[in-house]
Amino acid sequence: MAKAITPRSEDYSQWYLDIVKRAQLADNSAVRGCMVIKPYGFGIWERMQRQLDDMFKETGHVNAYFPLFIPKSFLSKEAEHVDGFAKECAVVTHHRLMNDPNGGGVVVDPSAKLEEELIVRPTSETIIWNTYRDWINSYRDLPLLVNQWANVVRWELRTRLFLRTAEFLWQEGHTAHATAEEAVEETLRMQDVYAKFAEEYMAMPVVKGFKTANERFAGAVDTYTIEALMQDGKALQAGTSHFLGQNFAKAFDVKFSNKENREEYVWATSWGVSTRLMGGLIMTHSDDEGLIVPPKLAPIQVVIIPIPKPKEALDAKAKELMDALKARGVRVSYDNDDQKRPGFKFAENELKGIPVRLGLGQRDLDKGVIEVARRDTKEKSSVPMEGIVDHIVNLLDEIQDNLFQRALKFREEKTTRVDTFEEFQKVIEGDKPGFISAHWDGTSESELKIKELTKATIRCIPNDAPEEDGVDLISGQPSKRRVLFAKAY
Amino acid sequence: MAKAITPRSEDYSQWYLDIVKRAQLADNSAVRGCMVIKPYGFGIWERMQRQLDDMFKETGHVNAYFPLFIPKSFLSKEAEHVDGFAKECAVVTHHRLMNDPNGGGVVVDPSAKLEEELIVRPTSETIIWNTYRDWINSYRDLPLLVNQWANVVRWELRTRLFLRTAEFLWQEGHTAHATAEEAVEETLRMQDVYAKFAEEYMAMPVVKGFKTANERFAGAVDTYTIEALMQDGKALQAGTSHFLGQNFAKAFDVKFSNKENREEYVWATSWGVSTRLMGGLIMTHSDDEGLIVPPKLAPIQVVIIPIPKPKEALDAKAKELMDALKARGVRVSYDNDDQKRPGFKFAENELKGIPVRLGLGQRDLDKGVIEVARRDTKEKSSVPMEGIVDHIVNLLDEIQDNLFQRALKFREEKTTRVDTFEEFQKVIEGDKPGFISAHWDGTSESELKIKELTKATIRCIPNDAPEEDGVDLISGQPSKRRVLFAKAY
Repeated sequence: MAKAITPRSEDYSQWYLDIVKRAQLADNSAVRGCMVIKPYGFGIWERMQRQLDDMFKETGHVNAYFPLFIPKSFLSKEAEHVDGFAKECAVVTHHRLMNDPNGGGVVVDPSAKLEEELIVRPTSETIIWNTYRDWINSYRDLPLLVNQWANVVRWELRTRLFLRTAEFLWQEGHTAHATAEEAVEETLRMQDVYAKFAEEYMAMPVVKGFKTANERFAGAVDTYTIEALMQDGKALQAGTSHFLGQNFAKAFDVKFSNKENREEYVWATSWGVSTRLMGGLIMTHSDDEGLIVPPKLAPIQVVIIPIPKPKEALDAKAKELMDALKARGVRVSYDNDDQKRPGFKFAENELKGIPVRLGLGQRDLDKGVIEVARRDTKEKSSVPMEGIVDHIVNLLDEIQDNLFQRALKFREEKTTRVDTFEEFQKVIEGDKPGFISAHWDGTSESELKIKELTKATIRCIPNDAPEEDGVDLISGQPSKRRVLFAKAY
Repeated sequence: MAKAITPRSEDYSQWYLDIVKRAQLADNSAVRGCMVIKPYGFGIWERMQRQLDDMFKETGHVNAYFPLFIPKSFLSKEAEHVDGFAKECAVVTHHRLMNDPNGGGVVVDPSAKLEEELIVRPTSETIIWNTYRDWINSYRDLPLLVNQWANVVRWELRTRLFLRTAEFLWQEGHTAHATAEEAVEETLRMQDVYAKFAEEYMAMPVVKGFKTANERFAGAVDTYTIEALMQDGKALQAGTSHFLGQNFAKAFDVKFSNKENREEYVWATSWGVSTRLMGGLIMTHSDDEGLIVPPKLAPIQVVIIPIPKPKEALDAKAKELMDALKARGVRVSYDNDDQKRPGFKFAENELKGIPVRLGLGQRDLDKGVIEVARRDTKEKSSVPMEGIVDHIVNLLDEIQDNLFQRALKFREEKTTRVDTFEEFQKVIEGDKPGFISAHWDGTSESELKIKELTKATIRCIPNDAPEEDGVDLISGQPSKRRVLFAKAY
């Protein structure tokens, strides 16, 4: 057997890396900070992509593709935007290599220097809004609802597979609207789409809220977010949707003539989720035995293992069962490698988080039953072969639901209301780290003071935070509603 | 009405650009050589991707993702490979911008110079084979059948939308095998997949063949290709599949222990098609009125246009018809913009190449008929509403088939057997440019001489070229089979 996974209780961060590597999701590459997404990990990401893409299309969006490179001068046009990204840009300066005349191998050709440096896109607002200037003339061209699936690069110093990498995969929606109201509506619509995706497909409960000024996207008027709570009590920003006002329209001079034939600047949104979601998926559900994948996203939902090993009668039965399951849309595979023992296969399939395992043995078959093991609870049961397909289809739904309910219960247990800074510290440093719901006076001073003292940040002001009188934990100034604090990834 | 498309007879190259731009497929961007793929163009590309991806999976491949960046030293490890790509590399040299202390705006931070330059991948053999070293130990790890959908950059000086751009989208398959035979088999299998896709989905006939040494991929032992003939008589290399021998395994030291427990270098293939296929699609089918898209790839297969304009009864009928067509899997839309006249809409839908147009008028409906216009032949007919859904489903198949047959007939007419260099020149410079089937002695000298004198190159040696005695057009030396020459994109 391969070496065990580090238990979560011992070292959460090592546990995470062990899962990513041992379940064959991703690995570090030879290029600093860039990851290789391995086939099994990519299979999960593909299902996420497909589902999100369907949801974007249902809400009226179309896909397009914009250049990888952004001229340096474009990035500089929106002042806050360039401040936010300048420190982490991969810069292309030359367009040719040559043989070193001094025999030093292949070197950059100094005569092939670009007139203007190109930035590998860290996000595409600038190149897209420069393009929208040509696409938008009249109110009849609006709204423009475009999404792009792409790779982006942000030169991070401290990287962690999926959660923070120099290159990552994502989608970025960029929409243009005639009015501020419509743009805000779109921003919220996409926050809803993200929340629905996270909860119904990833089985990951999220809080919908909006960011404080300090935590906003560079160039946004408002940033809406979905925040999830990981098993170690740290929050994960899982997706953001930005109302950009007219900032990029002004920076790139994008105007439209309205119904009264007057020129106005266009209103914008942008929104994105990335391969970071893979990190959220892992840290919401998995355990010390390995990954747990919710059935809706699992590349393989059911694995059949012959016991003690493949032979003709079992193979035939497995094929019959697979056909019946496939006909119901279940993704099923048969692990008929005769070089490995069942126990080894059980562990391997647990490690990969396959939701349901079927142990197919002759003795059981003679009794008309089959062993069904579920990954989420590790329960095993002997189930009659008659009606087995219905049983499994229902079980997959049950597992999907159970994973969500379990994560929701966890989050509720780890969300604490506090009313003094002392309590705040006790909770965050103690054995119950998680979301802290507390009053805040709306000032940057109080926000940054708490961050300095505890490393916790305001994750969001929940969209539905009820009005309630209270006082700021630091300043004692009045507050109208509670916000959510946590340490975060 | 917008300005007309340049007729093909006047300027083929301008006609092509007019189609790309006027049908809203793509546009130049602010970044030299990089294109923006617009939503309608991307909609076609997405269908290509989806279909190809399904075909790759049916043949046992899985997707993964490897880094955008390649360390300069990796590119240099395979000698021919670096020679092939060094002159067109985008090179990342720095990882940070800063404010110019002299007030010159945002500049590259000289202190953020990378120790080793990174190349934006022109293709990924090097970074992938460096990774495969960790993935492959034993014959049990083989074959490894991986594909990647990605963007790549080759710094081309003369670019043309879709056909040759600095950045393009593609897929690249990279497989690893225990034996040369298996790798060659895979190379041919993927050539077949490409040919099937081109012919059955793009309705674009192709010749399957292999390249001469001069035209091979940099680092390949053998390059297989599918070659299509465009309407102007120039060939388009539409997809290639390379048998890489052990070249990359040796460069990156990738060995496996075979069944006899002896170490051997791994055998490799790579294969790719790109957004260039969009250019092939356009130049195979379209006409002076605009784009023609084969039904299988059309984002919209049928458009319904109310005549003379939308009104309640027509809208209701259109909805009924759309529901019935959608239930049969037809992609249909209703053009109910009441600001545009039918004639304008007809022209617009012709421009976009929508295969079938239905003119929905009250007078026709009263007679129990509807006007059906097909884009490929521009035939219009009055069809009974009874059975209209079946009629349209069949018509889409008929159009798909007609486009292929028409293109095949064109190619056959434009393929000429010649036996002397005089004839060769007459054909290639005359009114019948196209494929020329002629004898060749197998030497680089003859091949390059013909290129020098006529600009035609050997597109391929057809896989199925029969043995036949002949003499080389230039050298007069004996030849065993005919090869295909053409001028090419």
